[in-house]
Amino acid sequence: MATKVFGIVGDPIDQVRSPMIFNSLFRERVVDAVMVPLHIRPSDFSQSLGALLLIENVAGLIITVPHKVQAASCLSGGLASSRVAVAGAANALRRTVGGWEGDLFDGEGFAKGMEAAGYAIKGKNCAIVGCGGAGSAIALALLDREIAQLSIWDTQRSRSEVLAARIRTLHRTQVEIREPKKGDDIVVNATPLGMAPTDPQPFSVDELQSDVLVAEVIMKPVRTKLLIRAAELGFKTLEGRHMLDHQVEAIWDFFRLPRLGG
Amino acid sequence: MATKVFGIVGDPIDQVRSPMIFNSLFRERVVDAVMVPLHIRPSDFSQSLGALLLIENVAGLIITVPHKVQAASCLSGGLASSRVAVAGAANALRRTVGGWEGDLFDGEGFAKGMEAAGYAIKGKNCAIVGCGGAGSAIALALLDREIAQLSIWDTQRSRSEVLAARIRTLHRTQVEIREPKKGDDIVVNATPLGMAPTDPQPFSVDELQSDVLVAEVIMKPVRTKLLIRAAELGFKTLEGRHMLDHQVEAIWDFFRLPRLGG
Repeated sequence: MATKVFGIVGDPIDQVRSPMIFNSLFRERVVDAVMVPLHIRPSDFSQSLGALLLIENVAGLIITVPHKVQAASCLSGGLASSRVAVAGAANALRRTVGGWEGDLFDGEGFAKGMEAAGYAIKGKNCAIVGCGGAGSAIALALLDREIAQLSIWDTQRSRSEVLAARIRTLHRTQVEIREPKKGDDIVVNATPLGMAPTDPQPFSVDELQSDVLVAEVIMKPVRTKLLIRAAELGFKTLEGRHMLDHQVEAIWDFFRLPRLGG
Repeated sequence: MATKVFGIVGDPIDQVRSPMIFNSLFRERVVDAVMVPLHIRPSDFSQSLGALLLIENVAGLIITVPHKVQAASCLSGGLASSRVAVAGAANALRRTVGGWEGDLFDGEGFAKGMEAAGYAIKGKNCAIVGCGGAGSAIALALLDREIAQLSIWDTQRSRSEVLAARIRTLHRTQVEIREPKKGDDIVVNATPLGMAPTDPQPFSVDELQSDVLVAEVIMKPVRTKLLIRAAELGFKTLEGRHMLDHQVEAIWDFFRLPRLGG
């Protein structure tokens, strides 16, 4: 058997941590595999995805910014998980008969990271800002954990409406379209605002209640301006890296990589 | 800067040693790069080569069996070295403006490996069996070292005639089309015969002169039936691995990888 090759596809690519994490695990678990960064522009993404299927030992891909939505649209019918279908985004693809099969682990990673950090989710009032792939995935994972109510918000009104409509077909929990406000227990930034030092805040945290948890999906910088402001106000905060760290094992299994003793 | 990714492309791929060799060198020389095996079928080769150009941090490819001839034919005009043009084969490609640029290091690797093992080449009578990419490359490298005469042979007569004609435009050394015979000092198997245990011998060594050197291009098995028979007859032998080992530094430079102190 040839060494299995996994790629992480993004643009830019130099910030990604997945090769470090997965290659350490491959060594630790004695798996003949390697993960490499693959720098692909959005205009070349669809063609490259088809061509990577031609390389028979390329077994799986992690998809990162800005390709998650395009990745979902490249999947043939039947090869997208229900999470991909609802969120319209995919962040992991594996080789299967007939092409790439896709799933989306951001939501589960986010929720597991929050639980691992000691925060309860069940029964909480949750607000998500940003209704792209990450926001949609997080909405689904929080709803699966029986939150009390959910609000979603996006500067593109149509994105929040589409997500609200999809959620209502699956869940009975109340979904509102509004910005975060006093009374929210968990408030999530799922926009890219905060990656660049000149970005405006994605929303204001100044009026939130004192025991709120403010959470990020941005990995770099580790402490965004939003988290810094929230901490100044004495709020609890959760960094974006937890979302990635807590989806590694789910992606490992999705890639059909071996478990010790398995 | 993203990690540079290099690939070795072949079918099959599990026998290749280049990732082990290059990844050791990357570690030793502290270069942020990785070499991975890429298993691509001949029918997918040309399309994959185009698509790999779309992955911006894929910086170079080593090409192995059975793709060397097809690799040469995929290179645009002006992007093939003179060695590629004469041999009709390429075994290393690097990214450049306008596409892949190709060269062929098998011949130099073979000749340097022979010299490193202590065998002189200048003034010798040389016979090569197999006029594909490897045989053509070796013919050119031996001619550059002022051998006395060269014979070439291929079961496909037209291949030996094409190679002889190309050689005659470049070198004044006498070239005959014939099988190896008594009087040859260096006899090279440049066919794939000997990779499979059921393969017939590529030629008979039984009538060669007692101080002949019998050399292989096959890497696996390390000791082919041809080398075993030659050793039984008391002849000197040279294994195929020397050809690869002695082209690593030339390919390193071709890939524009940094030299210490450079």
